[in-house]
Amino acid sequence: MKLENTLLSAIHSPVDLRKLSREQLPELATEIRNFMLDVVSVNPGHVGSSLGVVELTIALHYLFDTPTDKLIWDVGHQAYAHKILTGRRDVFDTLRQLNGISGFPVMTESAYDAFGTGHSSTALSAALGMAFGAQLQKINRQHIAVVGDGAITGGMFFEALNQAGDSPVDLIIVLNDNGIAIDKSSGVLKDYLIRQKNDLTSNPLFEAFNIQCSGPVDGNDFDTLLPALEKIKSQKGVRLLHLITKKGKGFSQAEAEQILYHAPGKFDRQTGTVKSIETVNKLPLYQVVFGETLLELAKQNDKIVAITPAMPTGSHLIPMMEQFPERTFDVGIAEQHAVTFAAGLAAEGFVPFCVIYSTFLQRAYDQLIHDVAIQNLPVIFCIDRAGLVGEDGATHHGVFDLAFLNCIPNMTIAAPMDEIEFRNMLFSAQQNPKGPIAIRYPRGKATTSNWRNHFETIPLGQSRILHEGKNTAVITIGQTGNAVAQAANKLEKENIEITHVDLRFLKPLDTKTLHAVFTTYSNIITVEDGAVKGGLGSVIAAFAFENNFSNHNIRSLGVPDTFIKHGHVDELHALCGFDVKSIVEVVKEFSE
Amino acid sequence: MKLENTLLSAIHSPVDLRKLSREQLPELATEIRNFMLDVVSVNPGHVGSSLGVVELTIALHYLFDTPTDKLIWDVGHQAYAHKILTGRRDVFDTLRQLNGISGFPVMTESAYDAFGTGHSSTALSAALGMAFGAQLQKINRQHIAVVGDGAITGGMFFEALNQAGDSPVDLIIVLNDNGIAIDKSSGVLKDYLIRQKNDLTSNPLFEAFNIQCSGPVDGNDFDTLLPALEKIKSQKGVRLLHLITKKGKGFSQAEAEQILYHAPGKFDRQTGTVKSIETVNKLPLYQVVFGETLLELAKQNDKIVAITPAMPTGSHLIPMMEQFPERTFDVGIAEQHAVTFAAGLAAEGFVPFCVIYSTFLQRAYDQLIHDVAIQNLPVIFCIDRAGLVGEDGATHHGVFDLAFLNCIPNMTIAAPMDEIEFRNMLFSAQQNPKGPIAIRYPRGKATTSNWRNHFETIPLGQSRILHEGKNTAVITIGQTGNAVAQAANKLEKENIEITHVDLRFLKPLDTKTLHAVFTTYSNIITVEDGAVKGGLGSVIAAFAFENNFSNHNIRSLGVPDTFIKHGHVDELHALCGFDVKSIVEVVKEFSE
Repeated sequence: MKLENTLLSAIHSPVDLRKLSREQLPELATEIRNFMLDVVSVNPGHVGSSLGVVELTIALHYLFDTPTDKLIWDVGHQAYAHKILTGRRDVFDTLRQLNGISGFPVMTESAYDAFGTGHSSTALSAALGMAFGAQLQKINRQHIAVVGDGAITGGMFFEALNQAGDSPVDLIIVLNDNGIAIDKSSGVLKDYLIRQKNDLTSNPLFEAFNIQCSGPVDGNDFDTLLPALEKIKSQKGVRLLHLITKKGKGFSQAEAEQILYHAPGKFDRQTGTVKSIETVNKLPLYQVVFGETLLELAKQNDKIVAITPAMPTGSHLIPMMEQFPERTFDVGIAEQHAVTFAAGLAAEGFVPFCVIYSTFLQRAYDQLIHDVAIQNLPVIFCIDRAGLVGEDGATHHGVFDLAFLNCIPNMTIAAPMDEIEFRNMLFSAQQNPKGPIAIRYPRGKATTSNWRNHFETIPLGQSRILHEGKNTAVITIGQTGNAVAQAANKLEKENIEITHVDLRFLKPLDTKTLHAVFTTYSNIITVEDGAVKGGLGSVIAAFAFENNFSNHNIRSLGVPDTFIKHGHVDELHALCGFDVKSIVEVVKEFSE
Repeated sequence: MKLENTLLSAIHSPVDLRKLSREQLPELATEIRNFMLDVVSVNPGHVGSSLGVVELTIALHYLFDTPTDKLIWDVGHQAYAHKILTGRRDVFDTLRQLNGISGFPVMTESAYDAFGTGHSSTALSAALGMAFGAQLQKINRQHIAVVGDGAITGGMFFEALNQAGDSPVDLIIVLNDNGIAIDKSSGVLKDYLIRQKNDLTSNPLFEAFNIQCSGPVDGNDFDTLLPALEKIKSQKGVRLLHLITKKGKGFSQAEAEQILYHAPGKFDRQTGTVKSIETVNKLPLYQVVFGETLLELAKQNDKIVAITPAMPTGSHLIPMMEQFPERTFDVGIAEQHAVTFAAGLAAEGFVPFCVIYSTFLQRAYDQLIHDVAIQNLPVIFCIDRAGLVGEDGATHHGVFDLAFLNCIPNMTIAAPMDEIEFRNMLFSAQQNPKGPIAIRYPRGKATTSNWRNHFETIPLGQSRILHEGKNTAVITIGQTGNAVAQAANKLEKENIEITHVDLRFLKPLDTKTLHAVFTTYSNIITVEDGAVKGGLGSVIAAFAFENNFSNHNIRSLGVPDTFIKHGHVDELHALCGFDVKSIVEVVKEFSE
């Protein structure tokens, strides 16, 4: 889209926006949608939710005095129009790229990003903190938390409501109800909101929390939206405006295919056809291997049940959900409940596969410890999106799980190097498990299209040696083993032979193999897709030190002790120094 | 109380209870209260909440077919009558003692303990898992979750409600509303429940979640309680019974002083006078040092605010709350919200002291990472009850914090050895903090009655050497330094001189001092009140290995990789091998 002669071309900040007449706003909305679609059709991002809030974004910046008034976008992936209107239009094409702008609000990126978001259900808590901050400083301003209907199932939203309803501060909750989360919404709150839409009466749920409510009104129509926002702006206290918006609004394919168009990847700007990377490359996603394997196992073992907190599509649980609807539970955005619910099922003799992205498992850490590990219940944690996830950036990288799980007694912690090992780990985990087992696996492609192997049992805690060499041993866990295998091939051509240990289990540690390795080799390199601090690097260091192995050259490759931003996964691996090239270099250094 | 000729003496399990007539139940209730008070007046425990549910406990076991019907006590500290009625009467005097019965329900202790509890707000999630488990197995039975009014502010309860209201299972929620948490309840839900009591109308909050509601009825009166439970038992689906009970019921001092009598320690069985350990020993609690110091700092620095999730008394925030009510926030049992609310205040330029028990901080792990650390906001985490906490046992020990915090970028992690260092750390933390700082401190007594020192700044990451010796260096963090100081004195008498490093900060690590120590000494011992795996022991091992220090004898003392049960703190330290005696022995071993 050419910017010349558009309204958008003149908007460098909300100050410019406020110079427009109300009649011009629908045209601006169309321009923003076109601009956004032009970019995200070739540079993938979160399309549907951002399309749905274009009018709301314009209206908020038009009517409120941002950035003095504090505007917080819950989850934050719907903030593309917000970014375009707040000084980031000209760099919008760098969205989610290395050194480009983030796909989420980030405080250091703009004064208009009042609070960084990424995970769900945080906005009200942060806005309430700011509202009390304003009151203590005697500052008169507005605080607006835009919260989706999907996000209100997250428990911390209700924790915040309990305080908010009792608080003498000015705060507006915009309930952006598009009737869908990433997947179809789950649980009874969705039905409640539907009832609200239909009878347009009072809102006893929020009124029980002493929140003044208005709406529902159409949030995609400036004629209803602007008056509703003006009215709520004029009110005092903590109040809620219920808006109905349409996810994908203004792009027919996105409206029709809301789940696909949540984050569709590249798509044809005209036809809307999504350009599946599957057609380019037949390798399956780890998620597909997971979902298909789980279904296969569930057919054999009727004690298997599956639980997801609102990610059935992302985790590829749809096949199991279709075949065994009564054994597959989507509990909504509710990681804490998901884990304890799984514990309840495990206490009944079931083998629950609790499938949670690594970054979101952080939200159920206490439940994992208190409800599962202390009771040694056999919940199988399938930790999806483990390691660096790429374009979603710092809020979504799953790099801490090895560290935060390793300190917990009773845990078994595994990570497969490839899809065959993954299937065998899933198979082994459900064979009479004695306690909790975590299996972490990455976002992205597996290594072979021929992955439907016959299951083999992997004894818990047993590593394997993939390549035998001299002098240098490389210990890996999980998918970094593939980079090391590639590095080994390159090095072989230069007559450098390494030994490669695919550790497979961080806990229990295969101390027998490690003793042999440390006795035989003086150069030890560890490689992991996770924080070295507390992860494989630290565990191996502790092992070596405890066992008095000395005079070794060692190097721990992985994610350093800093938050890694967004970028392509390959770029981030290189940045952190554990891509194939870096591994080759470190081995060569050791071999000199 | 003598058991002869009592109803209680004939009750070995609920089977015996069910042989009684309804008319006999009030007498049994009185007997149970007397029995319970006799024990807990000399062997301290949670008194108030257990007194309040005696009738409810009797009624549930009388009317329901436990243990086939599943009964889950949320939090679980109110389960004393439950324990007495379910086969543990004769060992009730071992409550919370080493090798005695736990103060909480524990699955391995009794078939009647359907699910272990300890932390708040988990029962509905677990019960829902079991209810689905029953349905899948086509088992017809009841599932009862007893949830307190304090616990419903915890977000995961609402996460569970969202699924429960949509679930075709049989499940009873008993809302045990005694109008108080450990402290006065906080937030708007308490007002909501009061309104329910007063107008006795419908319950739109829970009905919004599609939960059939009944009550409120008096839960301390069998004449109202039994019919209400019988009625709800006869219903189907997910339903809630709202009971009003009195915390401390039946013991006038406990009714009058509900906060004091939550867990009063020893008390006079006749007069009810609480035997304060303060009168025996003038040493202050760390909590008192904390609360008084915070108030002192808050007077000097008006940017300081304090946040507690429902523990103002336990954390000794009452002085600050009284003097600066507008700067002190009790957000209810809501750790997740507490942390992100603090982050919102920090984003506004405040210096929030977010005071959370170590074990409960597990519940805000994601918020600590996502809302605080990624944004590098200066929230001061005051981690109370860090380390082994004694009689509350496995669910409450705060032993994982060093490990789960160390892997997080931007964190500063400190632990004071004594109250002087503690005050200086608190003082230093609020001096222009650049990012999050965690200060962990134990439950229990400090070391001197003369603790109101003049503040001194401790540079972040700077350790101190307390004692210089030969051969052996002992590195400690936090209060274990005191055991080592005592050990050093004992050893000195045997002409064994150790060097003692009070590390003070796990992160940033004082690598300069550690280099000097490792260069000088060949015997290294670390001592910590926390999990060695991932904690000080692992960090020092990683440091040594990374820096190629070899040929050292090392030993890491602390909490081993297993869940530690309840017992006196001193007993548990000895059990784990980091009491004074164990330290002396290890040093001697090294000196031979």
